[in-house]
Amino acid sequence: MGKFSHIDNEGKANMVDVGDKIPQIREARATGKIILEEQTLQLINENALKKGDVLTVAEIAGIQAAKKTSDLIPLCHTLQITKAEVKCRVVEDGVVADTMVKCIGQTGVEMEALSAASVALLTIYDMCKAVDKNMRIEGIKLLDKTKTDLK
Amino acid sequence: MGKFSHIDNEGKANMVDVGDKIPQIREARATGKIILEEQTLQLINENALKKGDVLTVAEIAGIQAAKKTSDLIPLCHTLQITKAEVKCRVVEDGVVADTMVKCIGQTGVEMEALSAASVALLTIYDMCKAVDKNMRIEGIKLLDKTKTDLK
Amino acid sequence: MGKFSHIDNEGKANMVDVGDKIPQIREARATGKIILEEQTLQLINENALKKGDVLTVAEIAGIQAAKKTSDLIPLCHTLQITKAEVKCRVVEDGVVADTMVKCIGQTGVEMEALSAASVALLTIYDMCKAVDKNMRIEGIKLLDKTKTDLK
Amino acid sequence: MGKFSHIDNEGKANMVDVGDKIPQIREARATGKIILEEQTLQLINENALKKGDVLTVAEIAGIQAAKKTSDLIPLCHTLQITKAEVKCRVVEDGVVADTMVKCIGQTGVEMEALSAASVALLTIYDMCKAVDKNMRIEGIKLLDKTKTDLK
Amino acid sequence: MGKFSHIDNEGKANMVDVGDKIPQIREARATGKIILEEQTLQLINENALKKGDVLTVAEIAGIQAAKKTSDLIPLCHTLQITKAEVKCRVVEDGVVADTMVKCIGQTGVEMEALSAASVALLTIYDMCKAVDKNMRIEGIKLLDKTKTDLK
Amino acid sequence: MGKFSHIDNEGKANMVDVGDKIPQIREARATGKIILEEQTLQLINENALKKGDVLTVAEIAGIQAAKKTSDLIPLCHTLQITKAEVKCRVVEDGVVADTMVKCIGQTGVEMEALSAASVALLTIYDMCKAVDKNMRIEGIKLLDKTKTDLK
Repeated sequence: MGKFSHIDNEGKANMVDVGDKIPQIREARATGKIILEEQTLQLINENALKKGDVLTVAEIAGIQAAKKTSDLIPLCHTLQITKAEVKCRVVEDGVVADTMVKCIGQTGVEMEALSAASVALLTIYDMCKAVDKNMRIEGIKLLDKTKTDLK
Repeated sequence: MGKFSHIDNEGKANMVDVGDKIPQIREARATGKIILEEQTLQLINENALKKGDVLTVAEIAGIQAAKKTSDLIPLCHTLQITKAEVKCRVVEDGVVADTMVKCIGQTGVEMEALSAASVALLTIYDMCKAVDKNMRIEGIKLLDKTKTDLK
Repeated sequence: MGKFSHIDNEGKANMVDVGDKIPQIREARATGKIILEEQTLQLINENALKKGDVLTVAEIAGIQAAKKTSDLIPLCHTLQITKAEVKCRVVEDGVVADTMVKCIGQTGVEMEALSAASVALLTIYDMCKAVDKNMRIEGIKLLDKTKTDLK
Repeated sequence: MGKFSHIDNEGKANMVDVGDKIPQIREARATGKIILEEQTLQLINENALKKGDVLTVAEIAGIQAAKKTSDLIPLCHTLQITKAEVKCRVVEDGVVADTMVKCIGQTGVEMEALSAASVALLTIYDMCKAVDKNMRIEGIKLLDKTKTDLK
Repeated sequence: MGKFSHIDNEGKANMVDVGDKIPQIREARATGKIILEEQTLQLINENALKKGDVLTVAEIAGIQAAKKTSDLIPLCHTLQITKAEVKCRVVEDGVVADTMVKCIGQTGVEMEALSAASVALLTIYDMCKAVDKNMRIEGIKLLDKTKTDLK
Repeated sequence: MGKFSHIDNEGKANMVDVGDKIPQIREARATGKIILEEQTLQLINENALKKGDVLTVAEIAGIQAAKKTSDLIPLCHTLQITKAEVKCRVVEDGVVADTMVKCIGQTGVEMEALSAASVALLTIYDMCKAVDKNMRIEGIKLLDKTKTDLK
């Protein structure tokens, strides 16, 4: 059976030592969705149609959150992200946030990708909360992550 | 049909002016769940049984996130939270984070309660990611919010 | 002759005590401009025409900066901003950032309005720096500030 | 004609991927000036004469701002600055802030040098705002930037 | 026997609800000392004599830390500080940092005063660490705290 | 006689340029103690016995502080910490916080280890301040630091 990497034998939390790992190109993609009422979706579509700010504000918030991940999550390492991308798109029943984060480092960037998705969706929630009383955020998950050796 | 409070007629984003509202006691409760594999749940249960740190770390991260909400979400106001509570509990298929935030102010604290839940669950994700490759975060939503006049 | 409010008789820096002032509605408006080459302006105009993100990203950065002012400027007080607005507009030789910040408090919000303008213009600089090697930021100044008694 | 590095073909903002670049020694120097009234300059000169804190506080704020640049400017990368220097000097009509920032990294430090200058000048503004009602910040620009291969 | 205000009956940590308290003028004073070798003290005295930056940098860091206290200490409330003062003075065997913080609020500012003293002394440590291998920080404590009704 | 690394010949503060140093594995250990009354110790022991949160909250705060060091201390460099560990243990007259921080970098991590200890102890202070009016923090000091070549 597996073992928590952040938890020692006495059950105490711990920051994992990544100092012995070789720096690699790390990439992670995550996603999540906010479920919206039809009326809200219509408003967002109208805003998207006239290229308003709703999705852009959420995307910027997501990128900023990726950079703040180690401040948000206590046992996360500080990283130097080389790329963060957040794309929000309207779907049938809500808005999906797809994120991708890359770094060159000794530990992966999945928490950065997941934080970016979470905060982008919370930002959409914030902008829609005056018109939609039934929003919920669903399906925040990792899509994939890779590590590639440096040339 | 409703109208976005943060978006003007040209579709541009905007911080709402709350300066004319009367300060009231604002309270909001939110929740969310991270779905975990049986093996992961067993590890968390063992950790909880010996009163290890897993749930506590997530709760602390959630409280800290409530205080950082205006930094995370671009159009949120800065607030002086008078109380933030995050409780994580193991359920059949995962861990639920229940949050409650209070302030005395001119705008509500639902984004604070939702941010607290999101970050608490991301923190559990972080601690379990070495043992569980199928986690996802579901059902982040507001439970209720109230405003009460100051005496 | 005047006297620095933040500097004592020995020349030492000091945070002013605002505790004895009565809370009032404080408002300040500031502005600033980034001078751009014709080619850069054309690119921004094209982006603005198709309602791209350039000006929006700068506006969001400016709003966020208004909220961070007390962290940026050592002797500034923490404030609860009730409204922050940043509008970027293309002019003949560059982009102007106009800002407005409001709070209810014991000290003014001019530094918040000025920080918002500065960071909005720096953000435009960042986005244009691959195409324009002669940018400069000019004329960051206060337009006006007011204080009004609470009703 | 050039192309914005941060903006894609649809006009959407984007963090540039710097992961394929080779780390180099990056250095940038920037400058800016705050225009002050004669009386204000006299007060600053007196403070400087008795080696008071005015210029030092601004310099410290500038150094701190260099380290916060990626938090202020949405599409900036996080960097590990190896050196940040901010020097404020009184000139005929105001105070000039000269900055220099170095890092070893995959992207330049010009935004860090420019942010340091901007925040140093805003800090002087803050300290002088009780005595000078006509301040403005001018000429924030890059002086030069270099990249040198690592030995 | 007393009871921890932040800890519930099950031993779990908790942010205290201060929402029912009446806002009062809160003030706290704290102190602490860093013990230095004779040679280091001599260098600081020389720097102080020519009104160099050592003590000023520490004082500014302390003021900034007072404003960051709720971000540093998980169960602290966010506050609007109306005044923060940090004075460092050379004594026989080291440097003493005396701090004073005021706010109008529902909870005291002793943690802010203590954080300011701690960070001011850490900043002196940082500046002296190349010359002194035996520094230690001692006696960080509250001197007094008061609450006064608003008029 | 030694010389301050952060202070130039005119007594001005300066961030040291670490760009020419070769990255090495840096490790530092620090410690500090908070002196508590017998009654407080008893409450902490009871909390520790039932594995309550008191010591865990302090440890998490310390780890977070290690990551924030360059934001707290003006002339500290930003670093990528590979490991941060904070252990709090009850002793005869108080609680000791032992910390260890590692990074791969061009400058040491002693300030990070000392900041972690300081903030962990301040966090204990915060949680005990309702029951103990005589706390003081003592003996914050470096235990050792090492640098090792990368393989």
